[in-house]
Amino acid sequence: MFITFEGGEGAGKTTILNRLAQRLTEEGYQVINTREPGGIPIAERIRDIILDTKNTMMDARTEALLYAAARRQHLVEKVEPALQEGKIVLCDRFVDSSLAYQGAARGLGVEEVFQINQFAIADQMPDLTLFFDILPEEGLKRINKNTEREQNRLDLESLSFHQKVYEAYQQLLVKFPDRIERINANFDIIEVEEQSYKQIKAYLSR
Amino acid sequence: MFITFEGGEGAGKTTILNRLAQRLTEEGYQVINTREPGGIPIAERIRDIILDTKNTMMDARTEALLYAAARRQHLVEKVEPALQEGKIVLCDRFVDSSLAYQGAARGLGVEEVFQINQFAIADQMPDLTLFFDILPEEGLKRINKNTEREQNRLDLESLSFHQKVYEAYQQLLVKFPDRIERINANFDIIEVEEQSYKQIKAYLSR
Repeated sequence: MFITFEGGEGAGKTTILNRLAQRLTEEGYQVINTREPGGIPIAERIRDIILDTKNTMMDARTEALLYAAARRQHLVEKVEPALQEGKIVLCDRFVDSSLAYQGAARGLGVEEVFQINQFAIADQMPDLTLFFDILPEEGLKRINKNTEREQNRLDLESLSFHQKVYEAYQQLLVKFPDRIERINANFDIIEVEEQSYKQIKAYLSR
Repeated sequence: MFITFEGGEGAGKTTILNRLAQRLTEEGYQVINTREPGGIPIAERIRDIILDTKNTMMDARTEALLYAAARRQHLVEKVEPALQEGKIVLCDRFVDSSLAYQGAARGLGVEEVFQINQFAIADQMPDLTLFFDILPEEGLKRINKNTEREQNRLDLESLSFHQKVYEAYQQLLVKFPDRIERINANFDIIEVEEQSYKQIKAYLSR
């Protein structure tokens, strides 16, 4: 079972993912907790190029293709072997992030970015995706309060960028109603964890 | 005017490209002679990952996405600025190479590889493509005679791999009859250069 965690910045998805990985493991499930590039050397090297601040000339399409390449390698080296062993894979961000960030917010087009990602994943879509729904204004407030969190390039984008990301996720909920479940991320962490746990257990008992 | 040079190994396209670049320059044209990754730092770094022999785990789809990413960056940083200045760009290999090598010979599918490349080039197809037509057996014989030529990974592939590449190019001639011109590369270099020169001049005088 392949479960992805999606949402804007400050939605709490990484924290919840870690807590759920531990909880499911304690219940006896075999769980892999991962995120791209996932410690896969080829994917790490691709990531280094994307994040290198010296690469100011990088075109948005180059960036989208590099993300898709790193995604492919992480999928075949880490995710798919775990799925074949019957493990539950919890992955922090996946295809939907590229659709929202590169496709919508960077303006490359959601359909076009989906096409290159379909090539990358070769039909290995997640079984279940949890979307952590919180308005970008609220998410960014949380980030600014959390001084321990390392700032990344996306935190520095404008509010209008994050609003485009948010709207794109709303459209993805409409596009993939069977796969994506909405989690109300406005509550405290215990409550958000509980909602997420219930969705996963409901899926596991299908 | 954007002209690409395509063909299997040992077809002589690089030699002809260099000779034509010089000849056209002497005639007063402004000519750029390039090949991917074309000295573009981001594209060079992507190329390093592709060619690193330590990356034996690299999946064929990852490789195709990395080629597309390097192509994008070379296009926007080098090819398109030259075209905007009215220069003639002669490029050693471009999209058709990915279709023949990754799409056909590596078995990823010509249409699928074309889709990710269409994303990469965003409709910037070549105006003219010269396909240097020589049977793979003959091309490989030439390579083996030429001891000065550095062997690359593709030279080491089996004959059946190169036959798939050759067949794919034949199909591309059918698919893009207006863009791709066939050059009979079985003749000596002076004759092949003359055929190529005539095709380019015919296009320039359109």
